[in-house]
Amino acid sequence: MTEKTKLITPRLPRGFEDRTPGEIAAVGAMIDKIKAVYERYGFDPVETPLFEYTETLGKFLPDTDRPNAGVFSLQDDDEQWMSLRYDLTAPLARYFAENFETLPKPYRSYRQGYVFRNEKPGPGRFRQFMQFDADTVGAGGPEADAEMCMMMADVMDALGLAGKYVVKVNNRKLLDALLDGIGLGGPSNADTRLIVLRAIDKLDRLGVRGVGQLLGKGREDESGDVTVGAHLDEAQIRAIVGFVTATVLDGIDLDMPLDQPEVRLPNRDTLANLRRTFEEKSVGTGGLDELDAMVSTFDAAGYGPDRIRIDPSVVRGLEYYTGPVFEIELTFKVQNEKGQDVVFGSVGGGGRYDGLVSRFRREPVPATGFSIGVSRLANALKLTGNLGANEPAGPVVVLVMDKDQTARYQAMVSELRQAGIRAEMFLGNTKNFGKQVAYADKRNSPIVIIEGSQEREQGILQIKDLIAGKQAAAAISDNAEWKAARPGQFEIKREDLVSAVQKLLSEQ
Amino acid sequence: MTEKTKLITPRLPRGFEDRTPGEIAAVGAMIDKIKAVYERYGFDPVETPLFEYTETLGKFLPDTDRPNAGVFSLQDDDEQWMSLRYDLTAPLARYFAENFETLPKPYRSYRQGYVFRNEKPGPGRFRQFMQFDADTVGAGGPEADAEMCMMMADVMDALGLAGKYVVKVNNRKLLDALLDGIGLGGPSNADTRLIVLRAIDKLDRLGVRGVGQLLGKGREDESGDVTVGAHLDEAQIRAIVGFVTATVLDGIDLDMPLDQPEVRLPNRDTLANLRRTFEEKSVGTGGLDELDAMVSTFDAAGYGPDRIRIDPSVVRGLEYYTGPVFEIELTFKVQNEKGQDVVFGSVGGGGRYDGLVSRFRREPVPATGFSIGVSRLANALKLTGNLGANEPAGPVVVLVMDKDQTARYQAMVSELRQAGIRAEMFLGNTKNFGKQVAYADKRNSPIVIIEGSQEREQGILQIKDLIAGKQAAAAISDNAEWKAARPGQFEIKREDLVSAVQKLLSEQ
Repeated sequence: MTEKTKLITPRLPRGFEDRTPGEIAAVGAMIDKIKAVYERYGFDPVETPLFEYTETLGKFLPDTDRPNAGVFSLQDDDEQWMSLRYDLTAPLARYFAENFETLPKPYRSYRQGYVFRNEKPGPGRFRQFMQFDADTVGAGGPEADAEMCMMMADVMDALGLAGKYVVKVNNRKLLDALLDGIGLGGPSNADTRLIVLRAIDKLDRLGVRGVGQLLGKGREDESGDVTVGAHLDEAQIRAIVGFVTATVLDGIDLDMPLDQPEVRLPNRDTLANLRRTFEEKSVGTGGLDELDAMVSTFDAAGYGPDRIRIDPSVVRGLEYYTGPVFEIELTFKVQNEKGQDVVFGSVGGGGRYDGLVSRFRREPVPATGFSIGVSRLANALKLTGNLGANEPAGPVVVLVMDKDQTARYQAMVSELRQAGIRAEMFLGNTKNFGKQVAYADKRNSPIVIIEGSQEREQGILQIKDLIAGKQAAAAISDNAEWKAARPGQFEIKREDLVSAVQKLLSEQ
Repeated sequence: MTEKTKLITPRLPRGFEDRTPGEIAAVGAMIDKIKAVYERYGFDPVETPLFEYTETLGKFLPDTDRPNAGVFSLQDDDEQWMSLRYDLTAPLARYFAENFETLPKPYRSYRQGYVFRNEKPGPGRFRQFMQFDADTVGAGGPEADAEMCMMMADVMDALGLAGKYVVKVNNRKLLDALLDGIGLGGPSNADTRLIVLRAIDKLDRLGVRGVGQLLGKGREDESGDVTVGAHLDEAQIRAIVGFVTATVLDGIDLDMPLDQPEVRLPNRDTLANLRRTFEEKSVGTGGLDELDAMVSTFDAAGYGPDRIRIDPSVVRGLEYYTGPVFEIELTFKVQNEKGQDVVFGSVGGGGRYDGLVSRFRREPVPATGFSIGVSRLANALKLTGNLGANEPAGPVVVLVMDKDQTARYQAMVSELRQAGIRAEMFLGNTKNFGKQVAYADKRNSPIVIIEGSQEREQGILQIKDLIAGKQAAAAISDNAEWKAARPGQFEIKREDLVSAVQKLLSEQ
């Protein structure tokens, strides 16, 4: 390579990131805890590759305006299109259909791995991120959905988040039935229904009044921006708002303030509210019966509304859900970009998707599952102090005092390693003693070992306890005093290397 | 979805595969063991994303005829080309250059993850596979290379392969110097040198005589196919064959049989052989001095030629190596497709690549490292019986005898799970009792729990010990006798569920 070669700027494409030792260790520990819960529930792992045929994945991302929008795709040399998976559900449907004859049914599977979105990256929005999913394929009853919710709750407890989360449960069928019941069914009302869905999704942020405005004439925010409303009439608005706030016992007040108190009705009371609303409007209650059965399961297993809550305001973005949907919300407050206190929000969710496998097979194959956003959950655990920071401790560093004696230093390192001690010989430029110690400091080394020609002749070693040294340094202000005391440094016999290091490490 | 919708065939693109629970558990256990060795050697993990800019990765794959051949690439929406990484070394060079100011130097890093090759797949050749690498960047001395070889050896020992592997070490500079010395240097001999390299690479398979033929007039194999030779003269052939067989003390015999015995000279004797050859030809010995220093390190740390062996026949494919190269060879025999006994062969390797980081930075940045092919190593461990098969044991299955009582069954499952026992309620079609038991069998369940209406009235449960049941079934041939005995099935009180299951599991 000549001097004239143009240097390449070392950088990553937008939306991708490197992970450091601390992050790797912490996420690894978190994943182990989640895995333990999934396995206790009877789920088995499976892993699919990152590529699938594009037609296998389907087009289920929220943005459906452009075909294949949001997906990384390329053409194979036989002209077929392949894509990087955008979630772990579509590949599972393919896997289950492909191995239909041999898999146990129902099939309980968990999967962990990276997924890719070819989208505009932003703060906290990456184009490669990790998901950790669990699904039951071939089980059509609400007990399977209920189990998903309980498992999500148990995962949060296992991660130390007890009291800081709620699993919110809804059913896609409810809103569909309600909208039908108030004259908003049919293809001609599709646009209106989309505005209604978007309005409901903003309940957390805008409160009852804001949602009411969006369902009516529209809403002007603080900056003066106007959002067009759904132009529903008073009765329609009351029905929808009554539906999404069925967790409030005493009926609905459209002027309820934005910061409405968190309400935690017993799930049975919420269900009774909903049933009353639906029966008033003569709306079908099939979706309610499913929720009812789920609540019976929660009650039998001892999961109250402080952990799993029926909440009709939950709207999940993905198109393929067909029944119950659920979302894990972390309820503690964090500050947003504007410095306002907001709840941390969703770290995962899922639902029933009875149509996904039937893209591959004629017979109906019901399925339900959920997905946890690993990076987002790790961020949450960092904020609550529940993310363990178990990086490997720094290595013992044997300094190279004499370039001709590396075989001697290497022998010391090998002795230490054979005793299971993390150790290394300094392998950089050895001319500068200070740089070697600075390296050991940077690696968080607990101990450095020094053998110069004088020590070699005497058959001894100098051991420098870097941790004691740092503590002592804080107490000694005078440079001369420091040099005389050499805190944390002492001599041992060469043959005592391993035992002396073991002793020191156990005391540190 | 209408009946007329065309079904999609569930299948993977060629060269990609799914991984089963057994494989995932076994590879996970293997990776943990490798990790422990890397960390004991002072290496820290880092993880880079799967995409890099194409120019960052460079063009270092063996097939250099077509630009970007072998790599999956696509254009980002800002027109820049991105590629999926084809190894874990090029991304490390980018990472080190990008974080040059903050990383400790030398920088010891290990990385594990999937890499992608856009190549024609074949048996055992996949387009997505896992590598597990370790590298030291910023260390130019042969001690760093020696450490890589010792770490590879320790990894093999940690995996239970002691006595079944050898780490072979060579130096790129040696062959270059030798070819120069016998008149094969310079651009005009590039084609001849390529034939020589390919001939050397076949030493294992063709033996000394075959390589001699390839260096001379060419070779006709059993099927009559003719490989064109390098047309070297007798002296040149003897020099090259002498070089690649320097591990044999008593000089070279070009008619040595194909199945030459494995030779294990002390590394110092091999070095002396090489030095004699080189001094006879007046060839520079810089590369030999580096090997000499490495052997001193091996000797000091106690690694003999049974574990790490100087072997001049090692040729590594990747273009970017600049000095010592190494390869882990598993030496036990397996049968190839033709039913012949062959050594299992390489499961990883690496070398010094001092030029890779300097694509990003003007100053020289030496680096050395190696890569383990995780899937291939796992296959080897399967063959030797060293691959643990620690799949999760099957779950306790609570059968659904009465569809209206799922809340009761769910409560049992929750009790078991809270006691840390893997358990589930059967969630499939419950009409057929036999199918429920067949499901439990397929899941390798140790125990099923049965509560029908009769048991419910009496406050008892039936426990079916599936493992004892299977053993008993083998001993009972008569169907009536079987039904009377109901081996492995007994009654317990409902309140004793957890303690009875715990007791039974501990006895199984």
